[in-house]
Amino acid sequence: MDDPESDQRRKHSQDLRVTYHETDGQRRVHHANYLNYFERGRVEMLRAAGISYKQLEDAGLLLVVVEMNVRYLAAAEFDDLLTLTTELVEIRKVRIRHRYTICLGDQVIVEADSVIACIDRGGNPKRLPPQLGQF
Amino acid sequence: MDDPESDQRRKHSQDLRVTYHETDGQRRVHHANYLNYFERGRVEMLRAAGISYKQLEDAGLLLVVVEMNVRYLAAAEFDDLLTLTTELVEIRKVRIRHRYTICLGDQVIVEADSVIACIDRGGNPKRLPPQLGQF
Amino acid sequence: MDDPESDQRRKHSQDLRVTYHETDGQRRVHHANYLNYFERGRVEMLRAAGISYKQLEDAGLLLVVVEMNVRYLAAAEFDDLLTLTTELVEIRKVRIRHRYTICLGDQVIVEADSVIACIDRGGNPKRLPPQLGQF
Amino acid sequence: MDDPESDQRRKHSQDLRVTYHETDGQRRVHHANYLNYFERGRVEMLRAAGISYKQLEDAGLLLVVVEMNVRYLAAAEFDDLLTLTTELVEIRKVRIRHRYTICLGDQVIVEADSVIACIDRGGNPKRLPPQLGQF
Repeated sequence: MDDPESDQRRKHSQDLRVTYHETDGQRRVHHANYLNYFERGRVEMLRAAGISYKQLEDAGLLLVVVEMNVRYLAAAEFDDLLTLTTELVEIRKVRIRHRYTICLGDQVIVEADSVIACIDRGGNPKRLPPQLGQF
Repeated sequence: MDDPESDQRRKHSQDLRVTYHETDGQRRVHHANYLNYFERGRVEMLRAAGISYKQLEDAGLLLVVVEMNVRYLAAAEFDDLLTLTTELVEIRKVRIRHRYTICLGDQVIVEADSVIACIDRGGNPKRLPPQLGQF
Repeated sequence: MDDPESDQRRKHSQDLRVTYHETDGQRRVHHANYLNYFERGRVEMLRAAGISYKQLEDAGLLLVVVEMNVRYLAAAEFDDLLTLTTELVEIRKVRIRHRYTICLGDQVIVEADSVIACIDRGGNPKRLPPQLGQF
Repeated sequence: MDDPESDQRRKHSQDLRVTYHETDGQRRVHHANYLNYFERGRVEMLRAAGISYKQLEDAGLLLVVVEMNVRYLAAAEFDDLLTLTTELVEIRKVRIRHRYTICLGDQVIVEADSVIACIDRGGNPKRLPPQLGQF
């Protein structure tokens, strides 16, 4: 049974304006900064589904990145208006896999995927909270 | 009475190598990154005096920046080897004033001064720990 | 003679969402990151007046920060929605003075002022472009 | 024929002190910052082999990251003294593959590998400079 609302919630798009300090001496977005964009994508995708990542952390649950794979296909420059698409591709007991695409117009700039784990403040794996599980 | 050891501890110098991600599209160190250099200066000046800033924080004392004034006189570039001098110029019950100079060879790149306050995790002002007071 | 349109262009407000990587181990926005917020304020104030900072740079004019003075009054945390007000307070041949206020609701978090100079790629002072002068 | 000197140059270790601004609200090194550590590893490995990355760029050759894969195994905290090992594992006409390991004492914190390409300022692939090829 298809649940179109659920499908919608598994994919999220947002615009990102490249700021000056994110560029480096090559006049391109420094490659490390894309990981910050992906993080914003995860937070905003949760928010769009009614979940506050801040409240999860305040409740003692940390989502930590355990794997990150990035392919850089083209450069983005200062002031470019990029589109980030964040997609939830798999969810397990304590781990979530996301896929990311960043485009400038029709051109794909960066593709990536990551694995996020849920832990408590002591570093122990924790079952993902139910609202994420249904998500 | 002069205490040369105390004088020494009030002034600390260290080298800083400019890394690539600290530069921006102008091929210069982005102006915000100097504040991170100053922070390294404060931490290393404490360490040279036998004080671990990490232990202060673990004991619940936070040193927070309440004022920062910077004059940018010249540009530093990727791979430049800079010299940062950190000086403790005044210490009061809950506040410390530092002065910073960053040079490339004989040329002064940046001058700054800051006020740091001591607070607890709840945000309340705390008397500076005694080892800082004698410092 | 009052020019209300000119007044409007001398003051600009925008919302800023605090992202996770901008916080530090004190769970607050790291103090250096506010300078990046101010930079976004300058760029967006120019854009609101029809001026692209990127085009200025592509034309060989660099706006560089020569002075920055910041007072940190309170902490901002992850996910806070801040309001940044950027104000152009003085414009001279080669220098511009801005004032910045960052609020969380009614509370002022940070106040700052800066001096920006206009130079060419060789580092020589350049007269500010006319569209900024009328601005 | 083994060339021990060449072997040495293909592997480089350096210490990294975690600075405060590199941590995030989880009191750990923010995951994006490891990419900056790897970059420092590549630059210092080149320097140890007598090659200045800055001179390569000044000569119009850019080394850009085209792929980055990171496994985060444990957390590093403020003030930790990490050891980064950078290894050149493959070199082709226009691409270099590196492997990275970051340890805290005996514990592996992060493992990664990357592909770097050589381009000119126009974005065209360029043959790697001979001193890198022999390297």
